[in-house]
Amino acid sequence: MEKLVSLAKRRGFVFPGSEIYGGLSNSWDYGPLGVELKNNIKNLWWKKFVQQRDDMVGLDASLLMNTKVWEASGHLKEFSDPLVECKQCHERFRVNESWSDEVWWDLAKKLENVKSSEREAVVQAALKECPSCGAKNKFAVPQQFNLMFKTFIGSAESKSSEAYFRPETAQAIFVNFKNILGTTRMKLPFGVAQVGKAFRNEITPGNFIFRTREFEQMEIEYFIREKDWETSFEMWRKAILDWINDLGLDLKKIHEFEHPERELSHYSKKTLDFEYDFPFGQKELYGLAYRTDFDLKNHEKASGINLKYRDPDLPTTKGEEFWPHVIEPSLGVDRTVLAVLLDAYYDTGDHVILKLKPQLAPYKAAVFPLLANKPALWNFARSIYLDLKKDFLVAWDDRGNIGKRYFSQDEIGTPFCITIDFDSLENPPAGGDVTVRDRDTGKQERIKIDKLKEYLTDKLV
Amino acid sequence: MEKLVSLAKRRGFVFPGSEIYGGLSNSWDYGPLGVELKNNIKNLWWKKFVQQRDDMVGLDASLLMNTKVWEASGHLKEFSDPLVECKQCHERFRVNESWSDEVWWDLAKKLENVKSSEREAVVQAALKECPSCGAKNKFAVPQQFNLMFKTFIGSAESKSSEAYFRPETAQAIFVNFKNILGTTRMKLPFGVAQVGKAFRNEITPGNFIFRTREFEQMEIEYFIREKDWETSFEMWRKAILDWINDLGLDLKKIHEFEHPERELSHYSKKTLDFEYDFPFGQKELYGLAYRTDFDLKNHEKASGINLKYRDPDLPTTKGEEFWPHVIEPSLGVDRTVLAVLLDAYYDTGDHVILKLKPQLAPYKAAVFPLLANKPALWNFARSIYLDLKKDFLVAWDDRGNIGKRYFSQDEIGTPFCITIDFDSLENPPAGGDVTVRDRDTGKQERIKIDKLKEYLTDKLV
Repeated sequence: MEKLVSLAKRRGFVFPGSEIYGGLSNSWDYGPLGVELKNNIKNLWWKKFVQQRDDMVGLDASLLMNTKVWEASGHLKEFSDPLVECKQCHERFRVNESWSDEVWWDLAKKLENVKSSEREAVVQAALKECPSCGAKNKFAVPQQFNLMFKTFIGSAESKSSEAYFRPETAQAIFVNFKNILGTTRMKLPFGVAQVGKAFRNEITPGNFIFRTREFEQMEIEYFIREKDWETSFEMWRKAILDWINDLGLDLKKIHEFEHPERELSHYSKKTLDFEYDFPFGQKELYGLAYRTDFDLKNHEKASGINLKYRDPDLPTTKGEEFWPHVIEPSLGVDRTVLAVLLDAYYDTGDHVILKLKPQLAPYKAAVFPLLANKPALWNFARSIYLDLKKDFLVAWDDRGNIGKRYFSQDEIGTPFCITIDFDSLENPPAGGDVTVRDRDTGKQERIKIDKLKEYLTDKLV
Repeated sequence: MEKLVSLAKRRGFVFPGSEIYGGLSNSWDYGPLGVELKNNIKNLWWKKFVQQRDDMVGLDASLLMNTKVWEASGHLKEFSDPLVECKQCHERFRVNESWSDEVWWDLAKKLENVKSSEREAVVQAALKECPSCGAKNKFAVPQQFNLMFKTFIGSAESKSSEAYFRPETAQAIFVNFKNILGTTRMKLPFGVAQVGKAFRNEITPGNFIFRTREFEQMEIEYFIREKDWETSFEMWRKAILDWINDLGLDLKKIHEFEHPERELSHYSKKTLDFEYDFPFGQKELYGLAYRTDFDLKNHEKASGINLKYRDPDLPTTKGEEFWPHVIEPSLGVDRTVLAVLLDAYYDTGDHVILKLKPQLAPYKAAVFPLLANKPALWNFARSIYLDLKKDFLVAWDDRGNIGKRYFSQDEIGTPFCITIDFDSLENPPAGGDVTVRDRDTGKQERIKIDKLKEYLTDKLV
């Protein structure tokens, strides 16, 4: 993991956020290569789940929404973490992370069954010592702490001007359900997809870009009839596995974990996590949840606006109105980037290769003149580079020996290196071709210059 | 303008944000067609200014940055609006918007030259009557109001946990300058591009998506030697006009406006606005500013980190270190969407055509079976539709007569409508072709089914 973080910084995938000012609590910025990798992932997802499917449309909603949205969704009341505060150093901790899930469940159960006056003693017996300052038996009873980022709209900082940055993209889809239905005339089953930022004021973010306070989601809310929930859940389970396979991730490192009932969110009847073998443990990569009709029902109740669905093919006197049920595949963009980088990382012993799928690689190819000090060769290589750039993101390198240039491109996952030599300058049949070297096999082949774009296009499907 | 807002809502381009809860102060959500149009614009920009250029790289930084960034950039102190408050209704106003620029400049000059005790009288003489409640001579002296959205990171709402959502994407580029330089080894002149959200707590947002508190920018910081600033400024002036032309906007509606010295921002030596003839007046669409070396110099001073540049081709003993100067082309994504929609809006008298450039249109084509009740025809049309969907976003419509379907697609800017009829079912030479109708000319031509993708690809360049 440290090797990856170091490579990510050294080659321009991911930089620590606000680094020259000492950073900002586990925030990260995507550098020149990282932004390309991340965009390639998002574009591939959009193409697969929106463009290529007949039952999906997209949405891109504001990050700031009316506070009533979070009242209705339950986030204002329930989207909080119980924290224990050490009364000596005043640091606050999440029990399940600073101790363990088991300690937390045991403690939560005990707290339910004791009188108020005994609660503090129970906490101190369970947690004993402060992980930060080492104080013994100084803990207070856990307090709820809301995880949404609050701000103020307008010129006054008052209760009425409070607003929250969305903690998930999902609610924007429910709130726009009626507008989407009315403008697209979609019929059940259908889904709405959204890619965008969400914000959670996590107490303990960490593990590089795995858990950050600001993160990006690719979420789908798939609307169905209640009776179809199990088949739809299974369809999406397979679609997620298929997507994981598209990314080139090793499916042996993926583990499906069904949440036990006590851990289910208040809105969910079934939740499946897709966990990945990260170096810091087997952790959630993606989630799939059956949210029932909880969300639409609540938003209708809170807003007074009818959010039911009626089959448009039936005459209005027939067919009943109902709230569709919802299956939610929820994917984290940043976690995807992390898993893709980890899975692609391959150390040959003398150098590192990022075995990224060609579609995901930042640069599709690199162009090298065999020698930098021969103007005719250099200029010709340059013209090939500039021509390829019209259609692909390609790199240029004319420094040092070819072997070093190969290694440098391997390390950032460039799938093809194209070397222009003196034969390339000759017209066919003697020349007019270039050497293309494959990142993963090291094999080299001669390709005609006028076939280069076709060659790359074929490899990028 | 009202017609466009209505069409945007009715067809799923732009919905009022949080609408079922009464909205949220001029926030807007991009619906199924809007998100595609917006993504097409952003992708075209990225392709033109990052992928296809040799002197540009990308970045995608966090929206939340260390507060020291905003101290150094001057935003904490200077990014504020002077507001006057009516002491009767307590509403606050921006003088230059609620009255006029002239009133504001006159007032500001007068306030500089009077004693404190006389300031209120000067304000009341200048502004007279409250635009909201009509109260006479009830204004207080203007107060500064910071336009950044504040929030708190971590579990306490204290001064030390304050953080701000970025009011512009630019600063993230300066803060990452050293990391980008170190990982890419770019040489002057070069630029860094970023697309992303920014937030300004505007007092008076308005005009649909023209001015919103949450908006998206496409910004470039282009680093140069001081001596080159005028040629570089001119290069970018032309690049922006070229981009406007790529979008298909009418260049006759574009007006270049150079800021007079008194209106220049504290960091700028020259600023050029590209104004567009919006229905609500000639207003800023894009900006181009010469920021000097203000930003890098200030961030170096504030952070203590060396942000100078040294020519990497010179030996380290030779060539001096210096802060590059900066040209900044700054483009608003939402304003681009608005201008593109307005410019494309064309009312024939009996229906509306959105004459969007094919690259920008949400749907590249629509597929219709001539009749919906003939299974062989319907199924064949459906297979063509599903095959095209692998490569293009295409629409399907089998309702009503063909004329109505054409009009419906015209209204959302679909450049090509493909009708499958009984001849299409026959093999060539008798059939095997379909009717393709052009949105703007209304002309129809027969295209062989196996040439359809090629036909569309050629039209989308």
